[in-house]
Amino acid sequence: MWLPRSCPAVAATLRALAVPLRAHGTRQAQRQRMLFRQLFEPESCTYTYLLADLKTKEAVLIDPVLEMAKRDAELVRELGLHLVYAANTHCHADHITGTGLLKKLLPGCCSVISKDSGALADILICEGDALEFGAFTLEARSTPGHTDGCLTYVLNDRTMAFTGDALLIRGCGRTDFQQGSPETLYHSVHEKIFTLPGDCLIYPAHDYMGQMVSTVEEERTLNPRLTQSCETFVQLMNNLNLPYPKQIDVAIPANLKCGIQDAAS
Amino acid sequence: MWLPRSCPAVAATLRALAVPLRAHGTRQAQRQRMLFRQLFEPESCTYTYLLADLKTKEAVLIDPVLEMAKRDAELVRELGLHLVYAANTHCHADHITGTGLLKKLLPGCCSVISKDSGALADILICEGDALEFGAFTLEARSTPGHTDGCLTYVLNDRTMAFTGDALLIRGCGRTDFQQGSPETLYHSVHEKIFTLPGDCLIYPAHDYMGQMVSTVEEERTLNPRLTQSCETFVQLMNNLNLPYPKQIDVAIPANLKCGIQDAAS
Repeated sequence: MWLPRSCPAVAATLRALAVPLRAHGTRQAQRQRMLFRQLFEPESCTYTYLLADLKTKEAVLIDPVLEMAKRDAELVRELGLHLVYAANTHCHADHITGTGLLKKLLPGCCSVISKDSGALADILICEGDALEFGAFTLEARSTPGHTDGCLTYVLNDRTMAFTGDALLIRGCGRTDFQQGSPETLYHSVHEKIFTLPGDCLIYPAHDYMGQMVSTVEEERTLNPRLTQSCETFVQLMNNLNLPYPKQIDVAIPANLKCGIQDAAS
Repeated sequence: MWLPRSCPAVAATLRALAVPLRAHGTRQAQRQRMLFRQLFEPESCTYTYLLADLKTKEAVLIDPVLEMAKRDAELVRELGLHLVYAANTHCHADHITGTGLLKKLLPGCCSVISKDSGALADILICEGDALEFGAFTLEARSTPGHTDGCLTYVLNDRTMAFTGDALLIRGCGRTDFQQGSPETLYHSVHEKIFTLPGDCLIYPAHDYMGQMVSTVEEERTLNPRLTQSCETFVQLMNNLNLPYPKQIDVAIPANLKCGIQDAAS
């Protein structure tokens, strides 16, 4: 119902609402002393995530992109943060990671990737390892299937999961290269992601439709691929007939070294 | 500091953290019974916002884009929401609004724009009017300068402001067409937006750098244009020498009628 503010009932309602309706969105993150920012790179439609403890100023970047590393470093500086980790969910095939360049732009930051990825980084992590930033922790869950080194990072209170290419909004990563396996992906998503609370937010590495976030419950019930049986899912994934990824021959060799060769140039 | 989960101290810390660190981000919106989604249209780099009361299911879309109206309508349906308003911050010059098409896709929804825009819509609102959706309210603040009909929508608890083209992240809308006035814009932003709480989140209509959100405090201190004096700002805006907007001759006539002529085709 639309009502002009001049209506006395509306004015009274507005006054009443002003107090009890507390914060939400990124605003609440700040009240919880956590800063959260989602960032976008349009060429590969990649999302990068900045998380920080507003009290200690320690920050983490998840899946930074080489071409946007300067933007990310500037934001970290502007907000007075100290980047402790630049972490990848996996060895990407569609863009070069920004972790190598970020280490130069923000000295003191460590690059992170899974041990199973076979890539070089300062820190190689495994299932159950934790990345700490101030009072917060990101737990690494091994979610292979898109690649065999894919991780999902889960915030300690289980309200946010950064799923990389394992689980996308109403989709999932392809399984036809880089040791991909649809069976493995199916079990990863069902056992490691769909077992999180239904209202846990899903933040993927990509979206091609301008969508930015979903929830476990939404994907459990609405994902057109992962609501199928394992057998149907495997058949579906094995018949996608997707084109050879444009950037793969450049991106994978670079990402096996944190994108460092490009950062140096 | 990075530590493996197998370390007893880490395991204890993780257990301890699991309870007291409460929700944040869009997750907290859900606890506050509000759903919030930011959506993107890549051609004009426009952000569309979906807000809903999770209890009553009443929802509002701010600045929907014609080409993405089907995506937006599908999301509204999937989430079981009832769209009560499709509202514009102003009569856009760079894309055609989706409000006309959304009225057809989701019958019962009303289009909204400011009276000062000169455009047609079901509801023409003014400074101080309120759009209600369930327990929530969006207050319309008149923030002219980019156009003379620009509104900023402020959520009732003042934690979120949807600023349209009046205030962008580290920027602002141009003032060289559609009755634009740099003096007017400067006063709108300083008097109607910068007077909100410092941690109020700024959600603009566009960003061209992959940034999605800022805060009043950040823009008050870091916006390279609006931290200047009014005189310097006016000089700066009058010398941008921007190209003639590509879509303006199509977009404005369409948007004066909620994009209806295109929706019909």
